[in-house]
Amino acid sequence: MSNTVSSWRDHFIALRSNKMFEMTVIAIIILSAMLIGATTYDIDPRWMTLLKILDVGVTLFFMVEILIRMAAEEKLRNFFKDGWNIFDIVIVSISLIPVSENNMVLLARLLRIFRVLRLVSMIPELRVLMDALVKSIPRIGYVALLMFIIFYIFGAVGSFLYEDINPTLWGDISISMLTLFRIATFEDWTDVMYETMHVYSWSWAYYLVFIFLTAFVFLNMMIGVVLDVMNKEHEKLSLEQGEGEVSEVRWIKQHTADIELRMARMENMLEKLVDSNNNKQGQ
Amino acid sequence: MSNTVSSWRDHFIALRSNKMFEMTVIAIIILSAMLIGATTYDIDPRWMTLLKILDVGVTLFFMVEILIRMAAEEKLRNFFKDGWNIFDIVIVSISLIPVSENNMVLLARLLRIFRVLRLVSMIPELRVLMDALVKSIPRIGYVALLMFIIFYIFGAVGSFLYEDINPTLWGDISISMLTLFRIATFEDWTDVMYETMHVYSWSWAYYLVFIFLTAFVFLNMMIGVVLDVMNKEHEKLSLEQGEGEVSEVRWIKQHTADIELRMARMENMLEKLVDSNNNKQGQ
Amino acid sequence: MSNTVSSWRDHFIALRSNKMFEMTVIAIIILSAMLIGATTYDIDPRWMTLLKILDVGVTLFFMVEILIRMAAEEKLRNFFKDGWNIFDIVIVSISLIPVSENNMVLLARLLRIFRVLRLVSMIPELRVLMDALVKSIPRIGYVALLMFIIFYIFGAVGSFLYEDINPTLWGDISISMLTLFRIATFEDWTDVMYETMHVYSWSWAYYLVFIFLTAFVFLNMMIGVVLDVMNKEHEKLSLEQGEGEVSEVRWIKQHTADIELRMARMENMLEKLVDSNNNKQGQ
Amino acid sequence: MSNTVSSWRDHFIALRSNKMFEMTVIAIIILSAMLIGATTYDIDPRWMTLLKILDVGVTLFFMVEILIRMAAEEKLRNFFKDGWNIFDIVIVSISLIPVSENNMVLLARLLRIFRVLRLVSMIPELRVLMDALVKSIPRIGYVALLMFIIFYIFGAVGSFLYEDINPTLWGDISISMLTLFRIATFEDWTDVMYETMHVYSWSWAYYLVFIFLTAFVFLNMMIGVVLDVMNKEHEKLSLEQGEGEVSEVRWIKQHTADIELRMARMENMLEKLVDSNNNKQGQ
Repeated sequence: MSNTVSSWRDHFIALRSNKMFEMTVIAIIILSAMLIGATTYDIDPRWMTLLKILDVGVTLFFMVEILIRMAAEEKLRNFFKDGWNIFDIVIVSISLIPVSENNMVLLARLLRIFRVLRLVSMIPELRVLMDALVKSIPRIGYVALLMFIIFYIFGAVGSFLYEDINPTLWGDISISMLTLFRIATFEDWTDVMYETMHVYSWSWAYYLVFIFLTAFVFLNMMIGVVLDVMNKEHEKLSLEQGEGEVSEVRWIKQHTADIELRMARMENMLEKLVDSNNNKQGQ
Repeated sequence: MSNTVSSWRDHFIALRSNKMFEMTVIAIIILSAMLIGATTYDIDPRWMTLLKILDVGVTLFFMVEILIRMAAEEKLRNFFKDGWNIFDIVIVSISLIPVSENNMVLLARLLRIFRVLRLVSMIPELRVLMDALVKSIPRIGYVALLMFIIFYIFGAVGSFLYEDINPTLWGDISISMLTLFRIATFEDWTDVMYETMHVYSWSWAYYLVFIFLTAFVFLNMMIGVVLDVMNKEHEKLSLEQGEGEVSEVRWIKQHTADIELRMARMENMLEKLVDSNNNKQGQ
Repeated sequence: MSNTVSSWRDHFIALRSNKMFEMTVIAIIILSAMLIGATTYDIDPRWMTLLKILDVGVTLFFMVEILIRMAAEEKLRNFFKDGWNIFDIVIVSISLIPVSENNMVLLARLLRIFRVLRLVSMIPELRVLMDALVKSIPRIGYVALLMFIIFYIFGAVGSFLYEDINPTLWGDISISMLTLFRIATFEDWTDVMYETMHVYSWSWAYYLVFIFLTAFVFLNMMIGVVLDVMNKEHEKLSLEQGEGEVSEVRWIKQHTADIELRMARMENMLEKLVDSNNNKQGQ
Repeated sequence: MSNTVSSWRDHFIALRSNKMFEMTVIAIIILSAMLIGATTYDIDPRWMTLLKILDVGVTLFFMVEILIRMAAEEKLRNFFKDGWNIFDIVIVSISLIPVSENNMVLLARLLRIFRVLRLVSMIPELRVLMDALVKSIPRIGYVALLMFIIFYIFGAVGSFLYEDINPTLWGDISISMLTLFRIATFEDWTDVMYETMHVYSWSWAYYLVFIFLTAFVFLNMMIGVVLDVMNKEHEKLSLEQGEGEVSEVRWIKQHTADIELRMARMENMLEKLVDSNNNKQGQ
C-alpha cells in the first residue's frame, strides 16, 4: 500500500510542478477576482445565479489544489513550514466560513476578496517583492513610532489650542491627529491654517514646523528603507551571479590570501637557502 | 550599373551622416510640431491654407528622408533591424493614412501629433533616456501588478461598503479604483473620507492603510527602478572610461592575477635552487 | 560610611540596568502620554480629579527615577556629560514649573506634553534615529538658507507686483512668503495663479520658475542628506560587523601591506644570496 | 610709483581676506535685503526717506567693495576670469541703472532685489551648492526636453479634444500645457477630469497615462541628477580626505603596482641565481 501512496505522491509532485497546472491556478484566481468585481455592478438576477455557481466552483477548485499540494509533500510538516502555504490555507479557509447570506452578504463578499492575494503567492516575482516589503517592516516600525510621537505631541497641542476654534477638526486628540495627517498630505491645509490664524496669528509656525518634521522623517523612512533593502539585494545578486564590483572584491580577497600563503612558503625556502649558504661560507 | 548604385549609395551615406542634414531634419520636425500647435489657435482661413501646404511639404520631406536613409543601407534588412528606424517609419506612415478631412479632422490631426516623437529618435541623448525607460519596463511591470492588486482589493471593498453612500464615487469596482487613484494623489481625499465617516466612523482606517500601502509601493517602484538603471549605467560608463572605483577594482583584479602567475614561476625557480642546493650538500 | 554609599550605589546601578525597571519607566511615560491625551476629551469632573492625582504620581516617579540614575553614577559630572540625561532633566523640570492652574491651564498642559519625548531617550533605536537627524542639521542648514533666499526674492517680487491684486495673499513680504510656501506644497496654487494672470497674463512664468526651483532644491536637500547620512552609517556598520564590501576592501588593504613587508624581507635575503654568489664566483 | 601701487595693493589684498571685512559685506547684504523687504510694508513717509538714504549708502558700499577686490588683483584679467566676480558686478551694475523713480518705481525696486543673491557668492558653502546645481543643468536639460515633448503632445491632443468642453482650460496648446502642469502637480486635477468625462467617458485614460509618464520622468530626472552629482562629490571628497572605500581602493592599486615592480626585480635576481647555479653544476 505504501507503494500506491508513493506512486500517487509522484503524480501529485509532477502535477504541482507542471507549468500548465500553475497557469490554470493563476487563471482561476483571476476568474475569482473578476467574479468579485462583477458583483459590484448591477446585474441581472439570472446572471447572479451563474456567479454563485461559479463561486462555489472556484472555492472547490482552491480546496482541491491545496490538498494536491499537501499530498505532494513527503511530510505534512514541511508543507506547514513554508509561510506562503499557510498564507494560502488561511485565505481559502476564510472563504469557507459559513456566513448566512441573508443578513451578512457584505461580510461574505469581503472575505472572498482576499483570494486575489493568492496571485502574490503564485507568481514568484511578486513573492520576491513581498518578501522585501516584509523584511523592511522592523526598520519602518521604529520610524513609524517616531512619526507617531510627533503626531501625538502636535495632536495634543493642536487640541488644547484650537479646540474652541473648530471642534470638528480639533475636538480631541484622535480627531486632531487625523487633521494633522490631512495636513501632512497637503490636502486643503491652508484652509485649516487660515482659520486658526484668525485667533492665533502666529499659528503658521505650528503648521510649518509640523510639515517640515513630517516630510523629513517620512522621506527619510521611505528612501532609507528602500535603499537599504535594495543594497542588500544588489550585493546578494552580484555575488550569486559572480559579476559586478562586490564579487570582484571578494575574488581579490581570496587571491590575496592565496598569495600570502605562497609567499610564506617562498620565504621559508629562501631562509633555508640563506642558511645553507651561510653554513657553506662558514665552513 | 552596380557601380552607379554604389556611388549613389555613397552619396546617401555622406548625406545621412552630414551634420547639416541632421540639423535640417530636426528643424523640420520642430516646424511640423509648431504647425500642429498653430492649428489649436483660432486662425485666419487664409493662413489655414498655408498650414495645409506646409503640412504636405513636411510629410513629403519625411518620406524622402526615410527613403534616403534606406538607400544608404547596404542591405535593406539592416535598416529594419534598428528599432528606431521602424519607429520612424510607423510614425511617418501613420500621417500618410488617408483620412477624409471632412468628417474626421480630429483623427487626422491626432495622427500628425506623434511626428513630434521623431525628435526622440533624432537626438542621441534622448534615445539614451528612452532606452533606459524601456529597459526598466519589465521591473516596473511586476510592481505595477502588485499596485493593481492593492487597488483591486480596496476598490472591491470600497464598492461593497460605500456604494449606497455615494454611487458617483463608489458605484462599481472601476469607478472605485478611479476614486482610489484620486485618493492616492491626495486630491480632495478628505472630502471623500469625511463623507463615508458619517456612516462608518472607523472608515478613516481604510483610507490611511490604503495611502500608506500605495505611497510605499509606488515610491519603492520609482526609487528602486531609477537607482537600478542608474547603477548599471554608472558601472558601464566607469568601465568604458577607465576611471572610477569599478575600473580600479578591475585593474587590481587583473594585476593580482598577474602577480599570482609570476609568483608561481618564482616559487618554481626557488624550489629548483633548494633542490640543487640539497643535492650539493648531499654530495 | 563610604561603604554604605558605595553599596547603595551598587543597588542603584543594578536597578538602572534592570530590564523590568526600564519597562516600568517606558510604561509610565506611555501612561503619562495617555493622561495628556485623555484631558483633550470632555470627561466627567470626578475622573478629572483622578487624572490630576495620577499626574502628580507620574511627576514624582520621573523625579525619583532621575535621582536614582544620578545616584548610580560614580561622579555626578559624568551624568551631565550625556546629552540625553540633560534632555530628560529639562523635560521633567519643565513640568515642575509652578503654573497657577486657574488662569494658565493651557500652559501647564502644554508643558506636560513634552514628557512624551522621553520615549525617544528611553528606546535605543529611536536615539539612533534622532542622532542621525541631529547630525544632518548642519548640512540641511545651508540648503535651507538657499531656499530662504529663493523665498525672500520671490516674496519681495510677488509683494511688489501682486499687492494691489490681493493684499490678503501678497500684502507684505512675510505674507507673500507664506503664500509661496502654500504654492510650494501645490495647495490650491492655481487659484492664486489665475487671480494674478487676470492682471499680468505672463505671471504663470513666475509660478513655474518658483515651483521648479523649490522642488529641485528641496528634493536635492532631502535626498542628499538622507543618502549622505545613510552611506556613513552603512560603512560604519559594515566595518563593525566585519562583512560587506567596505570591510573586505579594508582587509585587502591590510594584507597588501603585510605582503609588501614580507616581500621587502625576501628581496633583502635574495640580494644577500646574489651577493654571496657573486663573491664565490669572483673568488 | 610702482612701489606705491604695490603697497596699496597689499593693503587691498589684506582687506579682502580679512574676516571682519567679509562679515561686514555679508551684514550689508542682509541689511540691503531687509531694506527691500521693509518697502513692502506700509510705512511712514519719514522712514521712507531714511530707507532711500540707506539704499544709496548700500549701493555705494557695494561699488567700493568691488573696486577694492579689483584693485587687490595683480592683473585685472584674473578678476574677470572668476565667474562669481562677474556675477557680483552684474548684480551691482543692475541696481545702478538710472530708472526714473516716478513712473518706474516697480522696476527700480525689482532690480534691487537681486542684490540678495550676492549672499550666495559671499558664503562658500552656498557657492558649492550653486556649483552643483549649475553642473547638473546639462543633464537636466535633456530630461526637461523629454518632458516638454510629452507636455506638447498631450497639450495638442487635449486642445483638439477638449477645446469645446472648456476653452478656459483647453483653448489653445499653450493654455492646455499650463492645465497639464496643474494636473502634474495634482492640483484639483479631478475637477478637470470629471468635466471631460461627461463628454468622453474614456478620458480618464488620458489623465492616468499623462500622470504616470510625468511622475516617472520627473522623479527620474530629480533622483538621477541628485545621485549623480552626489556620487561624484562623494568620491572627490573621499579621495581628498584620504579616507573611505574609494581612497582605500586607490591605495591598494598603487601598492599592487609597487608589489609588481618589486617582484619583477626579485624574479630577475632569482633567474640570475638559477643561471649561476646551473653554470656551476655544468662546470
